[in-house]
Amino acid sequence: MKEIRVFAPATVANVACGFDIFGFALERPGDLVVARLVEKPGVTLTRIEGAALPYDPEKNTAGVSVIRLLKHLGSKSGVELELHKQMPLGSGLGSSAASAAGSLFAVNALLGNPFSPIELIPFAMEAERMACGAAHADNVAPALLGGFVLIRSYQPLDMISIPIKAELHCTILHPRVEIKTEEARKILKKEISLEQLVAQTGNASGLIAGLMQGDLPLISRSLQDVVVEPIRATLIPGYYEMKEAAMKAGALGCSISGSGPSLFALSAHPEQAHDVGQAMQAACQKNDLECDLYLSPINQKGPVIL
Amino acid sequence: MKEIRVFAPATVANVACGFDIFGFALERPGDLVVARLVEKPGVTLTRIEGAALPYDPEKNTAGVSVIRLLKHLGSKSGVELELHKQMPLGSGLGSSAASAAGSLFAVNALLGNPFSPIELIPFAMEAERMACGAAHADNVAPALLGGFVLIRSYQPLDMISIPIKAELHCTILHPRVEIKTEEARKILKKEISLEQLVAQTGNASGLIAGLMQGDLPLISRSLQDVVVEPIRATLIPGYYEMKEAAMKAGALGCSISGSGPSLFALSAHPEQAHDVGQAMQAACQKNDLECDLYLSPINQKGPVIL
Repeated sequence: MKEIRVFAPATVANVACGFDIFGFALERPGDLVVARLVEKPGVTLTRIEGAALPYDPEKNTAGVSVIRLLKHLGSKSGVELELHKQMPLGSGLGSSAASAAGSLFAVNALLGNPFSPIELIPFAMEAERMACGAAHADNVAPALLGGFVLIRSYQPLDMISIPIKAELHCTILHPRVEIKTEEARKILKKEISLEQLVAQTGNASGLIAGLMQGDLPLISRSLQDVVVEPIRATLIPGYYEMKEAAMKAGALGCSISGSGPSLFALSAHPEQAHDVGQAMQAACQKNDLECDLYLSPINQKGPVIL
Repeated sequence: MKEIRVFAPATVANVACGFDIFGFALERPGDLVVARLVEKPGVTLTRIEGAALPYDPEKNTAGVSVIRLLKHLGSKSGVELELHKQMPLGSGLGSSAASAAGSLFAVNALLGNPFSPIELIPFAMEAERMACGAAHADNVAPALLGGFVLIRSYQPLDMISIPIKAELHCTILHPRVEIKTEEARKILKKEISLEQLVAQTGNASGLIAGLMQGDLPLISRSLQDVVVEPIRATLIPGYYEMKEAAMKAGALGCSISGSGPSLFALSAHPEQAHDVGQAMQAACQKNDLECDLYLSPINQKGPVIL
């Protein structure tokens, strides 16, 4: 029996100005996946810790993605999966993507790596479609590739790893309110104005230029979302107080991670990221909301075999 | 009497995926501006060649921009301007921007350069507002700075010069139909869909990454406009035939220059740019339309004193 243990990272999608097209990976939190090749055919979830997720493999992103992978290969292999969830569900940190990415990465390794990490992404996207109604790639792509990823196009799928010339440290504050990704998508307006388009393309382009040049002031000016944040902020109690606290504490920028409720902030130094976290946490607690705090550099490696 | 002669370049605005936020400068065509400091106060247009433009300085982008510059400085200097227009008006090549940029650059030099080129841009934008109803910067910024410019934000104005790691050659085809910038703006839809936003931000980000990495295939894949081109193409007879001819001849991408009717195409080699031009010209002539053809590398210098 071959067994492999993989850590797969949490991810921040959208990154303020890149709705559905930007995402980056964190070093923590993340999920631990254990995968085994076994005689019994099919995909079996043998253990799920840390969250009440369905054991039915067709209702679990880890299961769905591996089923699709095996089917694509025409493989008759049997796979057992253990999920050790080490991050909150429905938090906007790409929990479903991490489980899919870790499982795919582990099973692919067990099978002798028939696919490159980038080739695993479509299987993980299928799982995202099952989990939240849209086959978005802005969590699964950075979860599998690490670093900062641009999804230039969905049809055809075209993903670009953006080299970052700056050292960036991320603060994640997770206020304990649940937001379903599917619902967070439904409340978005279907139409936006031309002025919003101009502002959003300007900021998205500015963020890419800032990251590639290591221009921290430009990164800071570009971390603005005129389209999605004003709508989704209404789902997060005290959102603007927490954001303002982060900015006052010196963050380069702060916005909603994925569809929320987590907020991410980026800072130039680890100490700054720590101070930003303290300030956000204090603001969150003023609203009598419990929260989790994570500090992490940007993860450049993607999933790793432990 | 001090006199100075300045060449100011034509520019390509929008660049497919960057409506109102991207522009680059050409080495040709361009305008020649002659400026003189004289005793008689105020701004006088003494000569206009190559186009039937108003001599009233308040109705001419060269005049308006220099009047604003002198007013801002509190200067009592008198200025005479000669415009030698060397490109067609209303062609989508930033003709009004070139006249403003050249005049500002010349007068600024005559006065001992109180402003940097980037500081001259707001004066040229005022002239654009007079000329076409919107103070857009995607022609005046590259006309004054050279190279490829991103306007990240209009309020406050934030312009970023994007370093280009590839050698790019531009083909311009100007079919002789007149399109007024103001009208070309009016026909645009005021609302766009979220899907269009995702596609446009993806392509704009991809183009910036492609230019900065010198990744020609990525530049090529990113040169797509899902928002403006489908609408403005209807104003240009035979647009899609000309574009298809350019792509078949090997262009990296082809779209409308500014608000048209000119088309621009980008190629990796001068010979390719030439072949692309021949193909576009042939397609244009099939529609019994006269046209002008220009070939130029991207201008990295901006205006130059002759």
